[in-house]
Amino acid sequence: MILKEIGIIKSPYKGKERSQNEKSLSRQIMLLEIKDEFFEGLENLIEGQFIVVIYWADRAQRNLLKVVPPGKIIESGVFATRSQNRPNPLSINVVKILAIEKNKIIVTGLDALDNSPLLDIKPYYALLDEAVEVIEM
Amino acid sequence: MILKEIGIIKSPYKGKERSQNEKSLSRQIMLLEIKDEFFEGLENLIEGQFIVVIYWADRAQRNLLKVVPPGKIIESGVFATRSQNRPNPLSINVVKILAIEKNKIIVTGLDALDNSPLLDIKPYYALLDEAVEVIEM
Repeated sequence: MILKEIGIIKSPYKGKERSQNEKSLSRQIMLLEIKDEFFEGLENLIEGQFIVVIYWADRAQRNLLKVVPPGKIIESGVFATRSQNRPNPLSINVVKILAIEKNKIIVTGLDALDNSPLLDIKPYYALLDEAVEVIEM
Repeated sequence: MILKEIGIIKSPYKGKERSQNEKSLSRQIMLLEIKDEFFEGLENLIEGQFIVVIYWADRAQRNLLKVVPPGKIIESGVFATRSQNRPNPLSINVVKILAIEKNKIIVTGLDALDNSPLLDIKPYYALLDEAVEVIEM
């Protein structure tokens, strides 16, 4: 299972000073720069829309199974936290598209470090992405 | 960027008859079987909790940039759809934990084919995972 970099994220966060903050949203404006070879896949994305962005937290540690979450004292299994340190450092953010200019998507709500590899973009659907009870009919 | 399989999904969906349905939730009960070497990472996950599951849609096509979404007639860029056919077939579902039995997590709301490789589990946080406007203070 080998990932393809479909683009890169340009962010004001340059270093580890701001990794994913467990309980707050980033207000920064960031840029998704899509590689030419994947540009065609953007068709029908529109300004104002919410999207799910998946990126690779390339500065994360992959060999940890326990971490102390931000703001906590006691360690926890990584799968019970949103730490970027995990076996597969796949980071997910729900973000809003402010503008699209050719292969550049300007977003807010993203919490990535500069130059993080972009892996996927999906439209946000409340029914799929919110926590809802599935009631047996 | 090479992914590690942290476990496997056991699902009643055996073939392509049910790939991710864009607008409805699966009511099936499925099993996340975590590999022994990653078991420690589950600590603090609890029954009743909502989690974000990321898995690899291993039967998807990776070379498509345009698809006709389920129920539609006109094709769209893959990044504007939830099709599993995309350059990186990373599928995301928000699901509920019904029970945890050692390395097996029983969930509902997942829409995976049987034996899909499991990549990540994260706790669901409404603030991070719902589409919310970020208001400048």
